Amino acid sequence: MRIGVIGAGQLGRMLALAGYPLGMRFMFLDRSDDTPAAALGGNVIGAFDDPASLAELVAGSDILTFEFENVPAPALETLPADPPLWPPASALQYAQDRLHEKNLFAELDIASAPSRPVDDLEGLRGAVAELGLPAVLKTRRLGYDGKGQTVLHKQDDIDAAWEKLGDVPLLLEKFIPFDFEVSLIGVRSSTGETVFYPLTRNHHEDGILRYSLAPFEDVALESQAQSALNAIMSRLGYVGVLTVEFFVSDGRLLANEMAPRVHNSGHWTIEGAVTSQFENHLRAIAGLPLGGTTVTGHSAMINFIGSMPDRREVLALANCHLHDYGKSPRPGRKLGHATAVTATVEARDQALQALRRLNVN
Amino acid sequence: MRIGVIGAGQLGRMLALAGYPLGMRFMFLDRSDDTPAAALGGNVIGAFDDPASLAELVAGSDILTFEFENVPAPALETLPADPPLWPPASALQYAQDRLHEKNLFAELDIASAPSRPVDDLEGLRGAVAELGLPAVLKTRRLGYDGKGQTVLHKQDDIDAAWEKLGDVPLLLEKFIPFDFEVSLIGVRSSTGETVFYPLTRNHHEDGILRYSLAPFEDVALESQAQSALNAIMSRLGYVGVLTVEFFVSDGRLLANEMAPRVHNSGHWTIEGAVTSQFENHLRAIAGLPLGGTTVTGHSAMINFIGSMPDRREVLALANCHLHDYGKSPRPGRKLGHATAVTATVEARDQALQALRRLNVN
Repeated sequence: MRIGVIGAGQLGRMLALAGYPLGMRFMFLDRSDDTPAAALGGNVIGAFDDPASLAELVAGSDILTFEFENVPAPALETLPADPPLWPPASALQYAQDRLHEKNLFAELDIASAPSRPVDDLEGLRGAVAELGLPAVLKTRRLGYDGKGQTVLHKQDDIDAAWEKLGDVPLLLEKFIPFDFEVSLIGVRSSTGETVFYPLTRNHHEDGILRYSLAPFEDVALESQAQSALNAIMSRLGYVGVLTVEFFVSDGRLLANEMAPRVHNSGHWTIEGAVTSQFENHLRAIAGLPLGGTTVTGHSAMINFIGSMPDRREVLALANCHLHDYGKSPRPGRKLGHATAVTATVEARDQALQALRRLNVN
Repeated sequence: MRIGVIGAGQLGRMLALAGYPLGMRFMFLDRSDDTPAAALGGNVIGAFDDPASLAELVAGSDILTFEFENVPAPALETLPADPPLWPPASALQYAQDRLHEKNLFAELDIASAPSRPVDDLEGLRGAVAELGLPAVLKTRRLGYDGKGQTVLHKQDDIDAAWEKLGDVPLLLEKFIPFDFEVSLIGVRSSTGETVFYPLTRNHHEDGILRYSLAPFEDVALESQAQSALNAIMSRLGYVGVLTVEFFVSDGRLLANEMAPRVHNSGHWTIEGAVTSQFENHLRAIAGLPLGGTTVTGHSAMINFIGSMPDRREVLALANCHLHDYGKSPRPGRKLGHATAVTATVEARDQALQALRRLNVN
């Protein structure tokens, strides 16, 4: 079975590493041949919306998927019905625009921070008046890793915020103090079979995920999160891995955003669960039975951002697994990660501290 | 780090899948581009002893290794000292010739079945007289999966056995009734660090490994086996994974044969141990710290020979992991394997039975 993947970053790389044992082969479409996934399959080099490149990918694939969500929607509309594209293009359209995403959450009674769309400075003033401060102004499209957003603390911040972001459609979101962030990764197969990993607790710094701990055990929150994902997956006829990030505020969940793909906060599943998110995404889009999501221990996953630690030091840590994406270092760039899987929470916390000491940035 | 691999079969494929997360890249030398590993790296197509092909592999590699042992020794002798070749070529020379292997075992006081070299029919009669019957006549070189050997039960079998195998150098080995076979996989790094996996119990049918169970818990046998591997690794200045198969006869071990490479009986380590044999082989040859060999449960590994079972049926089994090598079916050919990792021995035995029911050949 030939899997065509739009995007050839580290998520594509880890999909391929999970897919070869299932007897799959891979072809990637990306703008360069210097990508983390390039060595792991065929490569089509071109823009994501270049018709000839898409046609080449289509011709070489039995199933199409994507590994990042900023694929131009018009490009996907030109794709033929066969090979199938999973997750569905509709999921991309919601994930690409924070306003559509908010509307979907509202339609499905999934709690999230109150917000207002903002199209001009006047509208921003009105939204601030309605929602109060502090609030977060975000671009509706193309934001990731903390890019494309700014916090307004006082009325005087309005002009500067507008100056910074105001040339594209925006969303103002009420700032809700939250205790921490969790994410839930669900998988739905084209047969309708659905499984969930346990909740993951995520720690961000400067808007970028620094580390994740799993399982985060809270039956009530997990049940709320599963209901939210079930609603989204049913509504969209979803197939594949779906991730939703939630803020935990006063013991309840507020949906932050959804990612219709394998997710950084699920990298621990490679060693920390019976079946990884990557393998389960592929099983789902291929209509194969889904794999078990039981954990094999307590996992701590840490991202390596901007530079890689000394490989020897990572590998010298017991129960620790290195993932080097083969990327050139650049400030703020995710270059790799490591996961420690331990028998106890205490050992996991020790492993996390050891990993954080390595990660000099 | 660029790893050059002589051979591009399923062992090369699984090495690459284990090596990319460590930041390694791969180039393979094999006689065809239709190999299990071809999609996972660069490919040099040529004979193993073709100087131009070897030079191309050397030029593209920081470290060389091999994934099967029948590489022509003269070809290896032409290789430059840099990049280093691990395991050392001397290990190949012992593994390629049963007489040299027997002599090495004898030199290191590693018990094995009594044997005699046989070069002509007269010599065969003499060896039978010395060792008694039953006995096994084996080609000294190029035997694998039960090929190149025949059992002599009575004097009348001598002529037929000679007729079948007698055009190459042979070894006659006394047939020792044994209870079962185990293997031990050891890893020695270029830094001298050494680790062992637990003993694996192997079940053969028609000379081919059908399934393996691990860990096989027997402290006394494990200690004997570790001593044998330590002796071989020290003697050869060994670097990489070394496998030795033993017969268990009357509570003691008799070395059957050694393989200077990752081994079929260690495939369960991919999911059943903290670090797989493939990753540890790569860590060893790259001089990186070795990974933990603790088991994550009780593992049953079954080979798929001649034909693959229905992929859906394998994946529907709980805790079961599929490995499809992407090879064309052919009678007697190893096409893939599956490993079940379970919490108890009872669950493992049930999983083995379920897997054996799938495996129709």
